[in-house]
Amino acid sequence: MKRVIVVGAGFGGLDAARHLASRADDAELEVVLMDKHNYHTFMPLLYQVATSMLNVESIAFPVRALFHGKRNIRFLLAEVQRVDAANRKLETSVGTVEYDYLVLAGGSVTNFFGMDSVAKVAFELKNLHDATRLRNHILESFEKASRCDDPQEQKALMTFVIVGGGPTGVEFSGALSELIHHVLAKDFPQLPVQDSRIILVEAGDHLLTPFPKPLQQYALQHLKNMRVDVRLGNAVKEATPTKVLLKDDTEIQSCTLFWAAGVKAAGIGETLNVELQRGGRVPVTSDLSMKNYPDIFVIGDMMYLEQDGKPLPMVAPVAMQGGEYVAAAIARRESGKPAKPFHYTDKGSMAVIGRNAAVAFTKSFKMKGFLAWIAWLGLHLYYLVGFRNRAITLVNWAFDYIFFSRQVRLINKAPKDE
Amino acid sequence: MKRVIVVGAGFGGLDAARHLASRADDAELEVVLMDKHNYHTFMPLLYQVATSMLNVESIAFPVRALFHGKRNIRFLLAEVQRVDAANRKLETSVGTVEYDYLVLAGGSVTNFFGMDSVAKVAFELKNLHDATRLRNHILESFEKASRCDDPQEQKALMTFVIVGGGPTGVEFSGALSELIHHVLAKDFPQLPVQDSRIILVEAGDHLLTPFPKPLQQYALQHLKNMRVDVRLGNAVKEATPTKVLLKDDTEIQSCTLFWAAGVKAAGIGETLNVELQRGGRVPVTSDLSMKNYPDIFVIGDMMYLEQDGKPLPMVAPVAMQGGEYVAAAIARRESGKPAKPFHYTDKGSMAVIGRNAAVAFTKSFKMKGFLAWIAWLGLHLYYLVGFRNRAITLVNWAFDYIFFSRQVRLINKAPKDE
Repeated sequence: MKRVIVVGAGFGGLDAARHLASRADDAELEVVLMDKHNYHTFMPLLYQVATSMLNVESIAFPVRALFHGKRNIRFLLAEVQRVDAANRKLETSVGTVEYDYLVLAGGSVTNFFGMDSVAKVAFELKNLHDATRLRNHILESFEKASRCDDPQEQKALMTFVIVGGGPTGVEFSGALSELIHHVLAKDFPQLPVQDSRIILVEAGDHLLTPFPKPLQQYALQHLKNMRVDVRLGNAVKEATPTKVLLKDDTEIQSCTLFWAAGVKAAGIGETLNVELQRGGRVPVTSDLSMKNYPDIFVIGDMMYLEQDGKPLPMVAPVAMQGGEYVAAAIARRESGKPAKPFHYTDKGSMAVIGRNAAVAFTKSFKMKGFLAWIAWLGLHLYYLVGFRNRAITLVNWAFDYIFFSRQVRLINKAPKDE
Repeated sequence: MKRVIVVGAGFGGLDAARHLASRADDAELEVVLMDKHNYHTFMPLLYQVATSMLNVESIAFPVRALFHGKRNIRFLLAEVQRVDAANRKLETSVGTVEYDYLVLAGGSVTNFFGMDSVAKVAFELKNLHDATRLRNHILESFEKASRCDDPQEQKALMTFVIVGGGPTGVEFSGALSELIHHVLAKDFPQLPVQDSRIILVEAGDHLLTPFPKPLQQYALQHLKNMRVDVRLGNAVKEATPTKVLLKDDTEIQSCTLFWAAGVKAAGIGETLNVELQRGGRVPVTSDLSMKNYPDIFVIGDMMYLEQDGKPLPMVAPVAMQGGEYVAAAIARRESGKPAKPFHYTDKGSMAVIGRNAAVAFTKSFKMKGFLAWIAWLGLHLYYLVGFRNRAITLVNWAFDYIFFSRQVRLINKAPKDE
């Protein structure tokens, strides 16, 4: 029986594994799904964990539970170290595994573009631990501010610099503003919380670059109304634990720098012995396999493929469509049928700015405000894997919506982190 | 204005603070509540977090949220290092604070009774981090077992030794049995999960010592039905990461030792310059204050007081009644009224053994089985602080009850722990 190894249980890997898994006893392929965590992380909502809105457990789902009753699939908790493409072997943290087909869906990591001082102090948001760490830090900054005598230091503790005006930066800024002005203001009655500052820095001239102009302007205006100080056409060039220096030499006293200004492909690509594209991405042919190693498929953020003259973006829908596609492509190869080229269908984008306010667009229409927010809510609930998570997420959101509260604001650290 | 410092936001400290807090602008006392965490932990349900049944966030509640609108209370995130009773000062991790009245409600820590080899490898369950660590370890043991070729090692990975036949040991054993045989058996279809062993070791001749005999026997029988191997009149004398040695020289190959066989008072008592009682507890007079320092009150697990010739037990109800009592005692002292002696009213005890099965008794009646389980459920939901936690806990429990599932089985570690 031929063995397919799928590396990564993100959106891409999970969809590949789901379409390869079978209830039949006589499945023709053996599937091994590998990840360094035993759960799938619903990454679009990490910012809500970081802002005390959702439980860690509401956006994570145990991988094994997704494959109950499927006969041809195994999960392996392991981290990939190297692909030995010539010998069809994978070196992992728990030993070497052989494959006939390999699906690389390792996702991406934060890209600091070589800015060491920023990388050292900035917070990022790529996994559950990042989200808990950022949540702890925000809440601790307010605790520190509450027992601080120096007004300057106090202000720095309540100043938050966010870099990157894409969906993550915009959504995080909005959620942080609500956390601070609606919740922490009540938690810390002795603190001048109204002096707290959220500064969103974006290098380009617009927020939410791929969105239509009216939606960009709506987002900008709405964030301003929420007291977010948006600095377009600017960038961060240096940082210390208490200061952020912008490109235009503005110096901001701030104890929190959140970096949402770039990602690059996960490191496994570097072991593939092939020239990588921009952002460390692995070039693939039209069936998402590698030119020199047709038994290796690459999907999601790790994959580099152009469509209509432009590289496909590093977003969840590209990964999910890629995952479903490779499952079919492998099946076609096994039955000797020719490959159909992969085609990505852009279904549009959305971003939530705050309570009642979101922007969304597809090819044929665009919307903003409350309706867009309801659409966003529905879509995200729908995609959240598993009924129970959906129920709990709904309870959380409903509660939050009705009572303007954030119950999850725990500083929950391992003793080693303390 | 006189200042009362309450140390510890457990059951005792929280109840003291609640009864001292006031909405009035002209309150006569300033209250400072101190804890090293910014949340209250609902400790009776830690075992459910450790067995993947409840979210970490479902049993923790941000302390500041409990005092919205109260004018005379402040929360201080800090750890007490030393009481300077002579000068009415408290040395803490964030500096020195002066007090007029001090309420010590620091709770307890695990007592390994000087058994170093056991202390080194055993898991305990005194806080959220312990619970996450134990959950991670149980799930990881099954992950390791699933890729293990050596049948002996595989069996050791699936063997769990629990020490202590009190409520914690009994409740954990039952919940672990359900996790393993109803959930992990489906997650790991390739593993011989039926060979997994849960061994509950109790030094006495009975489980649940303070309970009436018929309930003890019911608990024992029910645990046996759930495939828990109960060893009465035995004890653990040594342990390594892969082996547990019992008093009768039985050697058990096991990679998990959970210690629920004893607690001792938190360490602050040692800085009080007074002779401590058994378990490091601080002796108090009939109004819960110290003989030599009448402005220091001690409540909960830290307090040593005899009633009807026996020391009061280290359980939540004693702490809660003590908390409410000292708030009144301080008010009486301030208004020059004489103190009434503290009297603990024992309202009974309960323990849950598994789905549908619990035991409960008071002075006037005892019950077991489904009804006791319903009573347990109702009482715990009632006590869980805050509506939202209650709603989420209910959703979790309902889901679990209907679908026999455990959705929270994440191995969620900080990178440093990995």
